[in-house]
Amino acid sequence: MERLVLLAAGEQQLRIDKTRAAMALRGIDSAIITSNANIYYLTGRVFSGYVYLPADGSEPIYFVRRPVHLLDERAISVRKPESILSELKVRGLPLPERLGLELGRMTYTMAQRMMAALGVDHAEDVAPSLSMARAVKTPHEIRLLTVSGVKHERVYRKIAKAYRPGMTDLELQVEVERLLRLDGCLGQFRCAGDEMEIFMGNVIAGDNADNPSPYDFAMGGAGLSPSLPLGANGTVLRPGMTVMVDMNGNFTGYMTDMTRTYAIGQVDELARMAHQTSIDICRECAKAGRPGAEAKALYELGMDIAKAAGLEDYFMGHRQHASFIGHGVGIEINEWPVIAPRSKDILAEGNAIALEPKFVIPGVGAVGVENTYIVGAESMNSITRAPQELITLA
Amino acid sequence: MERLVLLAAGEQQLRIDKTRAAMALRGIDSAIITSNANIYYLTGRVFSGYVYLPADGSEPIYFVRRPVHLLDERAISVRKPESILSELKVRGLPLPERLGLELGRMTYTMAQRMMAALGVDHAEDVAPSLSMARAVKTPHEIRLLTVSGVKHERVYRKIAKAYRPGMTDLELQVEVERLLRLDGCLGQFRCAGDEMEIFMGNVIAGDNADNPSPYDFAMGGAGLSPSLPLGANGTVLRPGMTVMVDMNGNFTGYMTDMTRTYAIGQVDELARMAHQTSIDICRECAKAGRPGAEAKALYELGMDIAKAAGLEDYFMGHRQHASFIGHGVGIEINEWPVIAPRSKDILAEGNAIALEPKFVIPGVGAVGVENTYIVGAESMNSITRAPQELITLA
Repeated sequence: MERLVLLAAGEQQLRIDKTRAAMALRGIDSAIITSNANIYYLTGRVFSGYVYLPADGSEPIYFVRRPVHLLDERAISVRKPESILSELKVRGLPLPERLGLELGRMTYTMAQRMMAALGVDHAEDVAPSLSMARAVKTPHEIRLLTVSGVKHERVYRKIAKAYRPGMTDLELQVEVERLLRLDGCLGQFRCAGDEMEIFMGNVIAGDNADNPSPYDFAMGGAGLSPSLPLGANGTVLRPGMTVMVDMNGNFTGYMTDMTRTYAIGQVDELARMAHQTSIDICRECAKAGRPGAEAKALYELGMDIAKAAGLEDYFMGHRQHASFIGHGVGIEINEWPVIAPRSKDILAEGNAIALEPKFVIPGVGAVGVENTYIVGAESMNSITRAPQELITLA
Repeated sequence: MERLVLLAAGEQQLRIDKTRAAMALRGIDSAIITSNANIYYLTGRVFSGYVYLPADGSEPIYFVRRPVHLLDERAISVRKPESILSELKVRGLPLPERLGLELGRMTYTMAQRMMAALGVDHAEDVAPSLSMARAVKTPHEIRLLTVSGVKHERVYRKIAKAYRPGMTDLELQVEVERLLRLDGCLGQFRCAGDEMEIFMGNVIAGDNADNPSPYDFAMGGAGLSPSLPLGANGTVLRPGMTVMVDMNGNFTGYMTDMTRTYAIGQVDELARMAHQTSIDICRECAKAGRPGAEAKALYELGMDIAKAAGLEDYFMGHRQHASFIGHGVGIEINEWPVIAPRSKDILAEGNAIALEPKFVIPGVGAVGVENTYIVGAESMNSITRAPQELITLA
């Protein structure tokens, strides 16, 4: 029989305490959590089922559908959500009055079914409570992110060697995918929000960078198929182009996000200047990114530097512009805080933030870097430390 | 400016007609479709936005959020769902009275917002209507599936050469991933249902096959991380083990599903016998799988053959059993019909069905094959034609 790989009790308690504090802000007396990302956060592993988390300090219960042999003192095997209520009654536990469900994550059908199963006709959205808790990483989570960053960086240092003249963007991407996977990258690119689909990251060369994607991503790309219209499109890498590598760093269940840009031979001076501006923006935002800083002020700082360099038209896209320059990262690629013009987020120590001030230069391609930072007491510290300069491939 | 890669008009009409017929069964007068899979089905490409499909025969409208430059005579650029109603009014179009939304796919929050935006307080679930339409493939869709099958098969024929003694399941999987991707596999493994996560498929060796997964998948595996606990776990491939390769065949937006099993040196006779039984079940089910056949009768036929061979305890898993032996396949991996004991589905010409009667033999590993079939006038015809025999790697 399998034993649940539990989080260390102290670690789990930290996460639960933060989640409960965020639930209290919405008056939620108990939550039922069903998404993989939040189940992983609260329990330390993914299973199919429902985590019952009361706000009052009593123990959480794991209602587990699969794997059927998952045994833990907190696990109760159930087949369906309708069993939860009777299990609570049998244990003499208080029934939810103000129930929290992940309404922003679960399907309408499942939410309706869960409300009926719990005997309530209304539920509060508990997804933001989890997002708030997850935005401030624990020391253990920061270690997992740091391990991902180190492995991610190690693979990126091998990219230049994987290049061969005449290869396509896809061929280069496949070699990077292989290097990542052989070093233990899980591949899975977790996005919150049902309809953002991306396979393991993007490698974008030349003017393909200016093909707009269906999502609010910094970079686009036409992709290989109308069923997945973003990223590499088979462009042959030719002198004068840049190729931007923005591939998944999910080595530990916690992802780092890192972008580096390569020049095929000589590229236009405007592109070189824009690339340096991206490095400058990262450096200045990292300095300004201390606890208490406004996320929108960081965005404005980045935009001001881009404008001062005369690069506004190319900043965060050219034909289509992304509406942010950075985002929280962890179990998913789009966590809190969001570094965007209308963000109300305030930075806190322990945030993990990816900054990606990128430019699209017509006729050349995308340039810029992306790094993942941990917000410390005084500034943001990068955990993706591969060299940032434009690297020439030849 | 980008032009929409439209489906050929006749092809799109076939799909819309089938969808409307299925909507009529639920009395839905207009549907708003938001999921990538169904937007791809109805329009021929993925975008971020909302497809408005009236039941009465008037033209669908594409309300497009991103890409912002997506131009088509049917495309209207919108920022949010609240714009849909006024756009319908401006055009003098009838407003939805019995609105269909994909309630089984979209989040509760988005469904509530969409109902408010459309001025209704109730919506019908239109997701099953789309699933019903998609279950019967058009000739064009069958061509796309057939192309995926041919490419999929071509890669599988290279697997034995990619093997090197002493490699792990993960190392073999990464080589297969690379071969697939270089031949144009998109990688993306589309599952309906939010919480089924898998990265590009599974390679399962030895007793790792008996580690139960969080999902109702035929095969398990412990995986590399509690954040993605299924599939390869780093098992070194050793003589006496089997290794089962069940990797993604999404070359065209339409996936084929194919499994082949390899023996490392000599393996136990029980495993060889079970593997042959899987081939037998596929053959007999394919013969019996004609239009009008009951899906559950196919399941029973497979189970009867497994029982007659004395293999029931190992069929579709050992410690944890999957509850089906086959499933529809196309844009997603879990389409209709479902070949399961309580399925009410009836086979129809044009169904695409993956049959995967697999066995887990303790001490050896998983054995069996999986093929994707098209239901023809008389029987099911395989489109994944790589040799099925247990292939010895040495």
